[in-house]
Amino acid sequence: MSKSRFQLLLSFVTILGASSQVFAQWEALPEQAPAPADNPTTAAKIELGRSLFFDPRLSSTGTVSCNSCHNVMLGGDDNRPVSMGVHGKLGGRSAPTVWNAAFNSSQFWDGRAKSLEEQALGPITNPIEMGLKDHAVAIKRIRAIKGYTPMFNKAFGGKNAVTVDNLARAIAAYERTLITPNSPYDRYVKGDKSAMTAKQVKGMKIFASLGCTGCHMGAAFSGPSMAPGTGFFMKFPTYTNNKYVKKYALMADKGRADKHEWKVPTLRNIALTAPYFHNGSVDSLKEAVRVMARTQLDKKLNKAQVDKLVAFLNALTGEFPVQPMPRLPSTDGWTFTSK
Amino acid sequence: MSKSRFQLLLSFVTILGASSQVFAQWEALPEQAPAPADNPTTAAKIELGRSLFFDPRLSSTGTVSCNSCHNVMLGGDDNRPVSMGVHGKLGGRSAPTVWNAAFNSSQFWDGRAKSLEEQALGPITNPIEMGLKDHAVAIKRIRAIKGYTPMFNKAFGGKNAVTVDNLARAIAAYERTLITPNSPYDRYVKGDKSAMTAKQVKGMKIFASLGCTGCHMGAAFSGPSMAPGTGFFMKFPTYTNNKYVKKYALMADKGRADKHEWKVPTLRNIALTAPYFHNGSVDSLKEAVRVMARTQLDKKLNKAQVDKLVAFLNALTGEFPVQPMPRLPSTDGWTFTSK
Repeated sequence: MSKSRFQLLLSFVTILGASSQVFAQWEALPEQAPAPADNPTTAAKIELGRSLFFDPRLSSTGTVSCNSCHNVMLGGDDNRPVSMGVHGKLGGRSAPTVWNAAFNSSQFWDGRAKSLEEQALGPITNPIEMGLKDHAVAIKRIRAIKGYTPMFNKAFGGKNAVTVDNLARAIAAYERTLITPNSPYDRYVKGDKSAMTAKQVKGMKIFASLGCTGCHMGAAFSGPSMAPGTGFFMKFPTYTNNKYVKKYALMADKGRADKHEWKVPTLRNIALTAPYFHNGSVDSLKEAVRVMARTQLDKKLNKAQVDKLVAFLNALTGEFPVQPMPRLPSTDGWTFTSK
Repeated sequence: MSKSRFQLLLSFVTILGASSQVFAQWEALPEQAPAPADNPTTAAKIELGRSLFFDPRLSSTGTVSCNSCHNVMLGGDDNRPVSMGVHGKLGGRSAPTVWNAAFNSSQFWDGRAKSLEEQALGPITNPIEMGLKDHAVAIKRIRAIKGYTPMFNKAFGGKNAVTVDNLARAIAAYERTLITPNSPYDRYVKGDKSAMTAKQVKGMKIFASLGCTGCHMGAAFSGPSMAPGTGFFMKFPTYTNNKYVKKYALMADKGRADKHEWKVPTLRNIALTAPYFHNGSVDSLKEAVRVMARTQLDKKLNKAQVDKLVAFLNALTGEFPVQPMPRLPSTDGWTFTSK
């Protein structure tokens, strides 16, 4: 990256850090996510999207669904450093959680997708993820599973609604329902002062005063409100003169545009989504907190600070909505060896 | 196998075929499965078992759960010729459906497990399935996921209920709830003569008169009532002088005790569980019907017979109970790279 750009970023981080109190406007998580004008969330889309999200037949081997790596029965990820796709192939980056992804202003670690709709189509044709040759194959498979056609037609109207765009829309509509409100933090900021422990409240104050809120702001702790698709990125690591950069290979992957810039990830349910960082190199939340303080704020934390910060981060674990298990439309004699 | 044994089997098949009308005592599927005396089915066990069944952390890679190959959102299998386990490894035999497995008098294609409890532990340590080194590793993992301990203790009593035996019991208790009653066939034999089409009724008669009921008898079409663990096996292929044996490599795997004997599989929901046979070599139900008639009854069917038989087999698709999606206890910072 150019020096001027680097300095600009550094300045931004510094400014945000210095003025973190201003940004620490604590917000509860909304219980609904906004939907784009061309894809309003409806019950029919949610039901269809849930089925597609869990359907392993959208992968070349029939073994990998969206849920394989973004497991909604868990914290919305797979607790692996990097995910395992078809034929046991390993991904390059750690799967981000799908829970509350609706509040990200861009998707993927490098923000290359502007919307959930755009993101949803990526893994299906990624050769190390779901591995279909192209989206036409996905549509062909969905059409071969006869029960899907009426579900698409109901969700989107018309008689020929099984399209790539609608596939993406249905999955995105379902993902917009994956919201975890009412964490201790949410209840606290809404006025229930007993919702967080004294230790968690102290951690919350440290979180703001250290400058964590410089980046991890907003209702999802993933950045300020921005126009959808804009993305909120930070350089990571910003400070490289510390032991962590080498120990956890934090610079091996150059991130967005090879500038070591990354989307600021949500901290919602962070206690459930180990291991941490784009490369899943850190197992424990305590260590992740130490690494972040050192690499992003150039600060060494003492044990008490770390403990309180971790206590606060645990207060960001929300309530997971009860969902019905989908019944996937039957395969009707079509198999993975079918021509 | 010895000649006498072979002749005995052949005679058995012939006798059953000739007297099939006697055996064609059509039975509806029970809505509850019997449980062994030492593992009564309880709500707490079902809930725990469902979580364990869906938990990919019971595999070495964290990517394969019981549900991966026995997908209850589908027909209880994976629609693959053979399953894909950890690291993309391929199994040797096609995954049987878990739906109504509670009515099998033995488990696995070769009947080597006498109960659901015994079966449940097999894949966990099979190196090409879930790949854990041993069951002690499974227990260690379950204990590391702290939310499981109270679930085990509630289900089995005591304070140290996280054991291998209880792991098996919980999964088996859940599996005993996986029953699909009220198929058109069930409603028909209970007296609703409009539940099956005229074509399906004709298929049902052909099914009996051909001799299919010689093996595929009983409520689950998987054999007669037998003491749990006894197993009901047949030689397959019995008649080998036909094109199918080579085309579908039906003798490549020698089955139980290298005698080409196999557990008689249920025909419940057979329309949903392609591909067919122990090696998953046949994609379509029509072809599977032709193969069975030729290899087991030495009969060539005409198109009309096949169509009616397939229509009847489609009447065996039951109602799948609505299930809640489990919330798996959280990983709490433990990951697959944790020591």
